[in-house]
Amino acid sequence: MLLLEKADQAQGLLAETGIDCWLTFARESGTHPDPGMELIVGADVTWRSAFILAAGGKRIAIVGRFDVSNIRAGGVFQEVLGYDEGIRAPLLEVLGRLNPRKIGLNFSTDDTTADGLTHGMWLSLNESLQGSPFVNRLVSAAPLLAKLRARKSPTELQRIRGAIATTEEIVRLTTAQIRPGVSEEDLAEFIHEQFRRRGLPSAWDWNACPIVNCGPHSEPGHARPRADLRVEPGHLVHIDLGVRQEGFCSDLQRMWYVRRPGETAPPPNVQRGFATVIRAIDAGASVLKPGSRGFEVDAAARKVIADAGYEDFKHGFGHGLGRAVHDGGTMLGPRWEKYGKSPEGVIEPGNVFTVELGVTTEAGYIGMEEDVLVIDYGCTYLSSSQRELILI
Amino acid sequence: MLLLEKADQAQGLLAETGIDCWLTFARESGTHPDPGMELIVGADVTWRSAFILAAGGKRIAIVGRFDVSNIRAGGVFQEVLGYDEGIRAPLLEVLGRLNPRKIGLNFSTDDTTADGLTHGMWLSLNESLQGSPFVNRLVSAAPLLAKLRARKSPTELQRIRGAIATTEEIVRLTTAQIRPGVSEEDLAEFIHEQFRRRGLPSAWDWNACPIVNCGPHSEPGHARPRADLRVEPGHLVHIDLGVRQEGFCSDLQRMWYVRRPGETAPPPNVQRGFATVIRAIDAGASVLKPGSRGFEVDAAARKVIADAGYEDFKHGFGHGLGRAVHDGGTMLGPRWEKYGKSPEGVIEPGNVFTVELGVTTEAGYIGMEEDVLVIDYGCTYLSSSQRELILI
Repeated sequence: MLLLEKADQAQGLLAETGIDCWLTFARESGTHPDPGMELIVGADVTWRSAFILAAGGKRIAIVGRFDVSNIRAGGVFQEVLGYDEGIRAPLLEVLGRLNPRKIGLNFSTDDTTADGLTHGMWLSLNESLQGSPFVNRLVSAAPLLAKLRARKSPTELQRIRGAIATTEEIVRLTTAQIRPGVSEEDLAEFIHEQFRRRGLPSAWDWNACPIVNCGPHSEPGHARPRADLRVEPGHLVHIDLGVRQEGFCSDLQRMWYVRRPGETAPPPNVQRGFATVIRAIDAGASVLKPGSRGFEVDAAARKVIADAGYEDFKHGFGHGLGRAVHDGGTMLGPRWEKYGKSPEGVIEPGNVFTVELGVTTEAGYIGMEEDVLVIDYGCTYLSSSQRELILI
Repeated sequence: MLLLEKADQAQGLLAETGIDCWLTFARESGTHPDPGMELIVGADVTWRSAFILAAGGKRIAIVGRFDVSNIRAGGVFQEVLGYDEGIRAPLLEVLGRLNPRKIGLNFSTDDTTADGLTHGMWLSLNESLQGSPFVNRLVSAAPLLAKLRARKSPTELQRIRGAIATTEEIVRLTTAQIRPGVSEEDLAEFIHEQFRRRGLPSAWDWNACPIVNCGPHSEPGHARPRADLRVEPGHLVHIDLGVRQEGFCSDLQRMWYVRRPGETAPPPNVQRGFATVIRAIDAGASVLKPGSRGFEVDAAARKVIADAGYEDFKHGFGHGLGRAVHDGGTMLGPRWEKYGKSPEGVIEPGNVFTVELGVTTEAGYIGMEEDVLVIDYGCTYLSSSQRELILI
C-alpha cells in the first residue's frame, strides 16, 4: 500500500537527514492541503492534528475525536490518539515520551511542496510548546520532504506512467481534431471532454489545462485558450496538457504543423526552430543524471538556444513531477531569485522530471515537453519523446 | 461579477479594520490554495505573487510573466505587473509607492480561512522586505478576512441557496432508497451517483461525504460508511451531506426512522431524543442574532441537551458556511482550546451558519443540521428545517 511504502521511506530518511522526529501539523486539510500529509496520511482532518514519525519506527497521530477512525483505517500509525478540547496536552505528552532533539516541520522558503504548514499553525504550535524544551527544537523538514517526494517508489512510478499513457492517448485523438477553422477553445473543449469521459481531473487549473496555442498571434504562458484564434494553414499548433490519474500527474507539450496547400513539409524556419528545441532538450537530458545539480542541467539546454540565436526562455528547463504537477524538490532551473535554492539540489536516481522549453517563430510558438526518469547512469524518457512535428 | 463584488467589499473593510493595505502573498496556488485569494483573484498562480488592495481604491497584482494574462482577464486589478526572475524589486517598488502603515497578511492562529499564508512564504516575504521599513509593518489581516468571508453578498447567498436546494433534492431521492437490507455504503454510493450525475464535488472529502449512520452500532463522526452495517427495522438512519455548487457549499444532516412491523410511530425514547435535538437547535437559533457572540449561541443549545440529561455533544453548535464548508470567521462553539478566539466573534447580519448537534439513543445516533442566514433581528432558515423524523 502506497501510504505505508512512503511512511517506511520517510522513516529511513529521518537518519539520513538528521531529523529524529518529523511532525506534520495540520488542520482543515480540505481547505489547506499539506503536501506532506498526502504522502503518509491519505485522509482529511478537521481540527489541529499532529502526525509524528520518529526515530526507532514510532508512528503516532493525534487528531480530533471525529477523525480518529479514518486515520486508524489508514493503517500507517500504530497509535492514534483522539482529543476533544485541545491538542496541547496530548502533544506535549507524546513529545515528552519521544524527547526528540530535532523536530522537523513542513516549511520551506523555496521548496513549495515542503511548505504545507501555514504561518498561523506555526504560531499556534509555538504557543502550544511554550514553556517546554521542544519550542527550541523546531527545524525545517524540507531536506526530508524533498527526498521523500523525489525518490519515487515503484507504485508511484507505475502511476505516473499510467497518467502519461492516458495523456498520450488523448494527444493521438486530438490530432484528428486539428484542421483549419477549429479554434483554440474548440481543441481545449475536446480535450476536456476526454478528461471528463475518463473521470480524470486536469493536472493543473482546469481553465488553463490544456494550454492551446494556434499560430503566431497566440500568447504562450498559462493563458486560457481563445475562441477568436483559429487554426489556419501555415500555423503551428502547440498544446500543453496533463491529467491526474490515481493521484499522480503527467505534463506534456506536443506540436503540430498545419500545411499550406501544396506544402509537403514545414517551412525551413519552422523546421530549424523545432530541431533546435529538440536539440536543446536532448542537451539538457544528457546532463540530467545522478550527481548533477539542477542549474547545470538547465544551463546545458539554455546554451543551445542562445547559440542558435533564439530568445532565452523565461522559465526553468524542468521541474519534479509526481502527486503535484510541480512536485518540488530540485528544480532544473537557472539561479533566479524566484527559484531560491531549489536549482542547487543534486539529482538522484528515481527522480522524475519534466524537460521543456520553447522558441518563437513566425508560424507560432514551438514548445516541447517530455517526462523523464533518472536512472543510475543518466535518464530515460517516460513519455514517447516526439522527434518530429505532426503534420496536418 | 462576484470577484468584483468581493473586491469592492474588501476595499470598504480596509478602513473598518484599520488595515490600509491587504496583501495576499501566494505561490503554486493549485497546491496551496489560499482562501483569501479565491475571494478576489479567481485563477491559479505559479510563482510568488502579490495581490494588493490598498486604501484609496488601488488594486495591484504582481505575478510571474506567464500568469499575467489570466490575472488581467479577471478584471479585478487595475495594474498587473509581470516579472521573470524575482518579485522583490517590483514588490518594493509598489509598496514604496503606496507607503502603507499596516500591511495585512493572511495568517491567523484561530480562523482557518484567514490562514492561507504558508510559513515558508512568511519567511520569504520577510527576507524580501529586509532593509525596508515595510518589514516592521506586517500584521494579520484576519479581522478583514473574517468579515469579508462572513458578510455574504447577494450573489454568494444565491449560490448557497442553490447548493442547499440541490442537496434537499438528493435527500428526497435518498428516502426512496432506505429500506431494510441496504448498507451504509449502498446509501453513500447512491448519493455519490447523484453528485456525479450533476457534476458536483462533495462539500468535503469525497470518501467521508456523505456520512451515513445506520442503527446503534454505527459510529458518528467523520468515519467512512460501512458495507457491513445494514438498515434494519427499528433503526435510525442519519445522513450528513453537502455539495459544492458554483463554488459554494451546503451542509445538512437529515434523519429517518425505519419502523418495525406493526409500528406506526418511533418508540418514545427515539421521539424524545429527536424532539430534544430540535428543541436544542431552536434554542441556539433563537440566540443567533446580530450582536450575540458565538459561544453564547452554542451555550443556549448545549443547555437544552444537558437539562434533558443527554451526554454533551463534542463539537461546536455551528460554523460559517460559504466557499468552504467550514467557512471560518466566528465559530458557534464553546471556549475550548481548539477553537481559540473564534467563539468570541460577534454575529452580524448576512452571516451564514450551520446549526447542528446530536444525541445517542438505543436505535442509533440522532443528529440534525440546518443552514441559516442571520438577518437584522434574528436568523432565518435557508434549508427546509426538518421538524419530524421521516418514517420508512
